[in-house]
Amino acid sequence: MSNFKILTTDGLARRGEFDTVHGKVQTPVFQNVGTIAAIKGALSTEDLRQLGTQIELSNTYHLHLRPGDEVVKKLGGLHKFMNWDRPILTDSGGFQVFSLAKLRNITEEGVTFASHIDGHKIFMGPEESMRIQSNLASTIAMAFDECVENPAPKDYVKKSVDRTYRWLVRCKNEMERLNSLEDTINKQQMLFGINQGGTYDDLRIEHMQRIAELDLPGYAIGGLAVGESHEEMYHILDVTLPHAPEDKSRYLMGVGTPSNIIESVARGIDFFDCVMPTRNARHGFIFTRHGTMNMKNQKYELDTRPIDEECSCPTCQKYTRAYIRHLFKAGEMLAMRLCVIHNLYFYNELMERIRTAIEEHRFEEFRRENVEKLATRL
Amino acid sequence: MSNFKILTTDGLARRGEFDTVHGKVQTPVFQNVGTIAAIKGALSTEDLRQLGTQIELSNTYHLHLRPGDEVVKKLGGLHKFMNWDRPILTDSGGFQVFSLAKLRNITEEGVTFASHIDGHKIFMGPEESMRIQSNLASTIAMAFDECVENPAPKDYVKKSVDRTYRWLVRCKNEMERLNSLEDTINKQQMLFGINQGGTYDDLRIEHMQRIAELDLPGYAIGGLAVGESHEEMYHILDVTLPHAPEDKSRYLMGVGTPSNIIESVARGIDFFDCVMPTRNARHGFIFTRHGTMNMKNQKYELDTRPIDEECSCPTCQKYTRAYIRHLFKAGEMLAMRLCVIHNLYFYNELMERIRTAIEEHRFEEFRRENVEKLATRL
Repeated sequence: MSNFKILTTDGLARRGEFDTVHGKVQTPVFQNVGTIAAIKGALSTEDLRQLGTQIELSNTYHLHLRPGDEVVKKLGGLHKFMNWDRPILTDSGGFQVFSLAKLRNITEEGVTFASHIDGHKIFMGPEESMRIQSNLASTIAMAFDECVENPAPKDYVKKSVDRTYRWLVRCKNEMERLNSLEDTINKQQMLFGINQGGTYDDLRIEHMQRIAELDLPGYAIGGLAVGESHEEMYHILDVTLPHAPEDKSRYLMGVGTPSNIIESVARGIDFFDCVMPTRNARHGFIFTRHGTMNMKNQKYELDTRPIDEECSCPTCQKYTRAYIRHLFKAGEMLAMRLCVIHNLYFYNELMERIRTAIEEHRFEEFRRENVEKLATRL
Repeated sequence: MSNFKILTTDGLARRGEFDTVHGKVQTPVFQNVGTIAAIKGALSTEDLRQLGTQIELSNTYHLHLRPGDEVVKKLGGLHKFMNWDRPILTDSGGFQVFSLAKLRNITEEGVTFASHIDGHKIFMGPEESMRIQSNLASTIAMAFDECVENPAPKDYVKKSVDRTYRWLVRCKNEMERLNSLEDTINKQQMLFGINQGGTYDDLRIEHMQRIAELDLPGYAIGGLAVGESHEEMYHILDVTLPHAPEDKSRYLMGVGTPSNIIESVARGIDFFDCVMPTRNARHGFIFTRHGTMNMKNQKYELDTRPIDEECSCPTCQKYTRAYIRHLFKAGEMLAMRLCVIHNLYFYNELMERIRTAIEEHRFEEFRRENVEKLATRL
């Protein structure tokens, strides 16, 4: 029996429901990122509940370093630690190992690297990643993979993809073992596989076909949004997704802008995550249904309207553009918080509008109306 | 008719009600500080409402620089700007001019100084301070005074106090003029006078007697908590307050610790303000009814209790010591926010407990039980 049920489709877009031990997730969904078990911009899990967040994502690499996954396990797992009872997805640490850590050495066993905080040597392979994620007790664990930047030479990508496949098999075995242990907190932890293959169609397809055979509850497309153009990204989705199991959920990792999300839903993606709404907000960059805004702009000095008059987020219900601009100029943390609140609410609501459009079989119309508009600079 | 009504007394402690155009304030009260029209630690006025804040304090000097009081006036005044409908007190700018600004030159007219942000030259005298505060449209404006640090030579303090008296007369005249103007936002803005005199009993008393004659709605004790000991501070209150009008509210500026507050209520103070609960919280220093804690302490690593099990604040209702310690260690802004929430709630609730103790005529008992306990390091 699958955890994922497709309620309806509209073209290639899917309206689904993903069932977990921590409750159901309505897809397509955008996961809100709480890197080190906290949402940047001083948001708490209480705030996420108010913003309609369905699923939170935390980072294995960061939590392994601080406070340590053993500490989180002693405290009862991430859910208790953060006071969050809905689903949590943890990434595998792979992306951070390959983007943040220094002095990497990759072997068949795994990766030896130096912590970006104090330089101490750490080894992480598929089994280590699974053990850390089991200690964190997330709802969904991600497979440990190598994330190659784009473009990369084909022979290297081929070698890497083969190893990532062998690592996935080891992840699956280790997770099954961990889920059977007495003192494992979440014995129903799920594993998502990750498709790699850089920008090479044949490698992507072949890898997807191989990992599909492992019958995992979900499959991610990894290694995108790391250097290639949007067109290349969409192309990879076009050629790869037909080889992903129809009845399993699909997750496009680290993506992206509102337009990226709509275009990817149109190609059959169900899960997303990205630091963009939080990171941009902290610099005053705001998403609205009419396009993007820079709240530091002088033109908002005397503007008594909310960021978006149609928005129902806690920020737009109470505070003006003039006030938010002032907070940025005065260097007040509240500026970031108010903008992160708005952007996360916007992303969560965008997904709701996408889900409704699919349900009402007018997703193509929604896509036509919004892809360009949402990218407009106001 | 007075704005201030004493409901009951217990020894010298007063349980009062201060009536304003923005609603009533139950005293003794602690004003929550929102320096530049924002509460440090990413708190909004929505948060203040949740924390039971009765009155907010903002800084004239800071708001004059950013965003500018003319801008705030165009935006409808501080209340609209911050979205806060309860009372706001603005200080006069004097304290910041004498503590933050550089290259000061004091004359009978006022003070010329350089902005601490970009060094540009600014002149502020009694009339300028009143005009700025009128533009901000706060509920209560403070008189423009010179804040001398302790200790200072008596002949200088005497000269300064005389000038501060003449400035107060000018403040009163200017405020009356401003309140009568057509385009003034808050035509019922109130002026509090400020008693000065350093640590010299005779200067304090003489100054208080002179300003009492001006029949202002409230009187502050200024120039304390700026270098002298707690004992000296209490002594000044002991000798000065008997000369303050009985039926007017009394405000001890910039004070202080929970114990300072209890000791000052015992001497007849009604209003307080201090950056301590917010500033300390941002460094992990927490107030509880059992004493103070440092949330960065290693001993909280695996502590799953809330900061204070008896506390009803939003932080203690949802998050553990272990989580808050982790947030500090990981450098997450949320750490500061959760601690500021707790400390402000604690201060607001402390004042409520003080008010109840006075109402129930057991304030001396409350004082005996709490003055030492609240200062204990846990």
